[in-house]
Amino acid sequence: MIAKTPSPPYYAVIFTSIRTEADKDYQQTDEKMFELATHQDGFLGVEAVAGIAVSYWKDLESIKKWKENTEHSEAQKRGKTEWYKSYKTRICKVERDYDFNK
Amino acid sequence: MIAKTPSPPYYAVIFTSIRTEADKDYQQTDEKMFELATHQDGFLGVEAVAGIAVSYWKDLESIKKWKENTEHSEAQKRGKTEWYKSYKTRICKVERDYDFNK
Repeated sequence: MIAKTPSPPYYAVIFTSIRTEADKDYQQTDEKMFELATHQDGFLGVEAVAGIAVSYWKDLESIKKWKENTEHSEAQKRGKTEWYKSYKTRICKVERDYDFNK
Repeated sequence: MIAKTPSPPYYAVIFTSIRTEADKDYQQTDEKMFELATHQDGFLGVEAVAGIAVSYWKDLESIKKWKENTEHSEAQKRGKTEWYKSYKTRICKVERDYDFNK
């Protein structure tokens, strides 16, 4: 659940969303996008729970390429028309991080 | 649920955690910290679901002050000894953001 990311700096995309009632193909698409993202260049990890998904990336270029991925673009379109009532995407530079492990 | 943050740049603190079984005072402390944080200088908003909490701040100085807040420091100590098995805190500069609303 806690993504194993390298030492900063790297990038985080915080995606916070509110769903509609529409559910058709959502689950499969979500899983497919997860699978696709993990194979993208520059993908470092992801942490996701209902309503918040944070993905980690090597640099802005990797994020741009993932945004423009054909299947992902299709999913984004359906997200807007069907699955999401609203969402916010924040592109962030991770400047520092701290771990705690027992 | 989607925090109403100002135009970038601003800061995000991504706190991802894995809990222990220990639950004593966790809920009350969590609520108290939420309440306290919202009254801190520079606090912009928070988005939290089980395991991921993202708080938004005006600048690094606000984050530092919140980290050093006395009650918060006490809660952090109990977090380490009692409530968390592991966690990761990431300090990020939000460079860009995008909204979608129906």
